[in-house]
Amino acid sequence: MKALLLIAHGSRREASNDEVRIMAERLKQFCSEQYPVIESAFLELANPLIPDGIKACIDKGASSVIVLPYFLNSGRHVVEDIPEIVNETKNKYPGVTITISNHLGASDLMMDLLVATANSAKI
Amino acid sequence: MKALLLIAHGSRREASNDEVRIMAERLKQFCSEQYPVIESAFLELANPLIPDGIKACIDKGASSVIVLPYFLNSGRHVVEDIPEIVNETKNKYPGVTITISNHLGASDLMMDLLVATANSAKI
Repeated sequence: MKALLLIAHGSRREASNDEVRIMAERLKQFCSEQYPVIESAFLELANPLIPDGIKACIDKGASSVIVLPYFLNSGRHVVEDIPEIVNETKNKYPGVTITISNHLGASDLMMDLLVATANSAKI
Repeated sequence: MKALLLIAHGSRREASNDEVRIMAERLKQFCSEQYPVIESAFLELANPLIPDGIKACIDKGASSVIVLPYFLNSGRHVVEDIPEIVNETKNKYPGVTITISNHLGASDLMMDLLVATANSAKI
């Protein structure tokens, strides 16, 4: 069973963390056939942290987990911190496939999203 | 003539700022018929700042400017800082329509982008 784990940075402003959690909830209505388990987690400053997010997916029966960095830029967090934490956590679950996808900013669909967002502006 | 101005936060890490500039360049290849002028600017820490980005659009002949906040969450920057700067700048250009679009995270297409990004992961 496949899980999708959305990873955001985490903020001291709890409303920002809630936006990420709500995004994960919305995703459930959108692709739960493909990803029966969808969770969110944070690099720092908010809970659950990444290892706990991965554990939550596995506790719910996931045999593979896609970790999706909800980041626009490929800074240190995307290139170093998230892979480091995910790789350490992987060792605890040898029977589970845990894979990091591209970060959001690297998606081919980003151009479509930008144009659609611009077009939605009420001039 | 319509302009699209991509606004990112700005980073001390110049490579992150360059990713935003490159995104704006890529957009030119994607929707320059609809938006003949496409520029990027930053809230802080990098150049050009928002007022200079708006000026650059107008100097290139824009009669309307869509300001697109390249932000995932609707924090203070999106809700207060960017509107405040844009509104102040508007007063200088009474003949130009300057409009702020949704921030990126609020787009209806975000679900598609998330699923496509997850699906691109090599398991």
